This record gives sequence, C-alpha cells and structure tokens, in this order.
Amino acid sequence: MKLAELSERSGVSPATIKYYLREGLLPPGRRITATQAAYTEEHLRRLRLVRALIQVGRMPVATAREVLAALGDDALDHHMRLGAAVWALPHGPEPDEGDPAAVAARGAVDELLERAGWDFGREVGDESPAYRMLVAAVAALHRLGYPCDTAHLLPYARSAGQLAVADLDLVEEYEREEEQVEAAVALTVLYEPVLLGLRRMAEAEESHRRFG
Amino acid sequence: MKLAELSERSGVSPATIKYYLREGLLPPGRRITATQAAYTEEHLRRLRLVRALIQVGRMPVATAREVLAALGDDALDHHMRLGAAVWALPHGPEPDEGDPAAVAARGAVDELLERAGWDFGREVGDESPAYRMLVAAVAALHRLGYPCDTAHLLPYARSAGQLAVADLDLVEEYEREEEQVEAAVALTVLYEPVLLGLRRMAEAEESHRRFG
Repeated sequence: MKLAELSERSGVSPATIKYYLREGLLPPGRRITATQAAYTEEHLRRLRLVRALIQVGRMPVATAREVLAALGDDALDHHMRLGAAVWALPHGPEPDEGDPAAVAARGAVDELLERAGWDFGREVGDESPAYRMLVAAVAALHRLGYPCDTAHLLPYARSAGQLAVADLDLVEEYEREEEQVEAAVALTVLYEPVLLGLRRMAEAEESHRRFG
Repeated sequence: MKLAELSERSGVSPATIKYYLREGLLPPGRRITATQAAYTEEHLRRLRLVRALIQVGRMPVATAREVLAALGDDALDHHMRLGAAVWALPHGPEPDEGDPAAVAARGAVDELLERAGWDFGREVGDESPAYRMLVAAVAALHRLGYPCDTAHLLPYARSAGQLAVADLDLVEEYEREEEQVEAAVALTVLYEPVLLGLRRMAEAEESHRRFG
C-alpha cells in the first residue's frame, strides 16, 4: 500500500509517519519510484505498536526505539523475546538502596514471591525491572507508613496472577511469533489504563456495597 | 510536636514542609511563640498523604490541593466522601466524543458494566471520571485494532472486583472516618505502581509457564 493508505488505515497523519520513518521507528518501505514507496501489513502493525508506546505509554522516541529493538532479537527463544521486549519498557523510579524502607520492601517482596510460588521471579530477582519497580513502589508505602506487609500484598499478587492469564490469552490470539511479541508489548502498555480505570470503578462499586 | 520532629518522623525536610504550609496543603500548626508552632498526629498523617499524591502520584500542587479539599466536604455521607476524594484524582485523557472509536468503546464498557453487575457504575455512568478514563483507554485499544470487546474486558473487570475488595479491606483497617477517607485516596494512588509491577512480574511467570 502507499503512504496515503497506510495513513488512512492507521489514523496517523502522513507527516507523523514520515517522522517515524526518519527516526527509525518504522522500517523503510519498498521503493517503487523516486518519490514513492510501498508499505505492507507489517508496517501497519508496527505503526500501531509505535502509537501505543508513544501516545498511550507516553514514551520518548528514544525509549520506543529501544523497545522495538528488543522485539527483533533473534538470539532469544519465544519466552525470552516476550520478556526482553517488556523489560525494555519504562518501569518508573528505581529503589534507593541506601533507604531502610527499600531494604524492608525487598524483604516483603521476596517473601511475597515465595508465598505466591513465583519461582521464575525468585530466580531472576533483581535483574528484572518489574521486580525493582515493585520494590520501589512498596518502599514508598513503607516510608509513608501505609500497610504493605506480605500479608497485605498477597491478595494483589493473586489478582495479578489472574490478570496475567488474561494477558497471555490475548497474546495467544495472535498466530505468528513476531505478532505475539509485538502484541505482548502493546497490550502490556494499553491495558494499564484499562486496569487502573476498572479498579477505580470497582472501588466505587465495593464502597457503595459496604457504606452506601 | 515541633517542626523538627514533624520533619524527622515524616522524612520530609523542614523547607518542604514550610512550602506545603504556604501552599495550603497542610493546615497551619497551633502557634506557641512568635516563631514556633505545634503540630499534631493529624499533621503527620496529612503530610504523608501529600507526599503520596505529589511524589508517587506525580500530581501538581494545585491538583493535590483539590483532592485534599474534596476530603473535607462534610455535606457528604461516608461512601460519597470516599468517592469524591478519589474522583478528584487525575484520571488521564478524556474520551474524544467525535471519534468513532470512543463510541464503540462506550458501547463495550456499558455492556461490560451490565455483565459484571456493576449497578452503581451503570447508575453514575458518564459522571464518573473513572468511567471516562476507562472509555478513553478502551477507545485507544479499539483505534489501534487490538482486542477490546466486552468478552476480552470481562476477566479484567473480575480481577478489578477482587482488587477493590482488597483495597476496601485496607481502608477499613483504619478506624476513624477521616482516616479512612485519607487512606482511600493514598492507597488508590500508592497501590497503582504496586499493581502494575506485580502484573508485569506475573506476566513473566505465566509466559515462563507457557513458553519457557
């Protein structure tokens, strides 16, 4: 398809598509004349992912480029490619290792992984940016004196386990491996605001039930 | 307690506390000399909440001030005060009503509320910022061509329902009504990164189980 059709089908303006091409977020099309190139369904798919990262995930172009680079690492098996791409996403503040709250948080998180039976997470530990994101978030709760013991965290871990089953079911709706890896990244980012919105609505529902 | 003790117990510097006092995020202490004031446990609690909103929630001071104002509206019953305070939080982008994706998203969300049995949410509808947040998030999925039918959303709504039970259980660990309202706001904000971190870890766990 030509640039105009790629623009129409994606809802992204030609000027923005050209910018993404210049920035290396989209691979170049197949040149057909001096001024025109042809784009494929893969370009459309990649363009959707780029929009997800930049518009919804609010990622800088350089970060989006790193995430896309991680998608294409053929040296990894399927599980590792999924993981590598998600690991390249921004994960927020890092834990401050000098802070006693971070030490306490790490203890609570490690105990949580054990009690939840997350053996992969225990094995990978600190290497995982999601682990460090969790430690930093729990440290903030701890520092401010809000409840965040392993016992408090466990129901959240159980719900996260169910969410992950739904997430991977969505990923497996895609057939080809590279589609699955792209979808894993896009859906991780795009379902975050869905989840936070649903949680706030469910809180109102539960508050109404208890106090309404 | 004096300012120095308030600073030590909260981990917030005296200069920052003075800034919050000037900005009206903290009520003034009881003046004891021309240059000194006394602060109470309530100041400490409020200060922790302010830190949660500004540091973890990354809210501008003006937004934090609105959230705090909503906490103190005595005209509302307990359920409504909890709701009003959470409604004052930032909820991200609003749906674009001219966009066909937003119309489709609204249909999917309305059907979801019906199937999940969220009668309070159906009654409040569009008035709720969490509802509009959810519609905007689902519209982004729809626009980009990722799966977001009611059937896809339903498992997320069920997990959100369980999260809300955990959230309200945490809130009810506090005895007094005003503590509960403050905790509802703080815990809504502080548990968001906990939840997103746990989801990413659980995804890695589930991916390892399926493809590892």
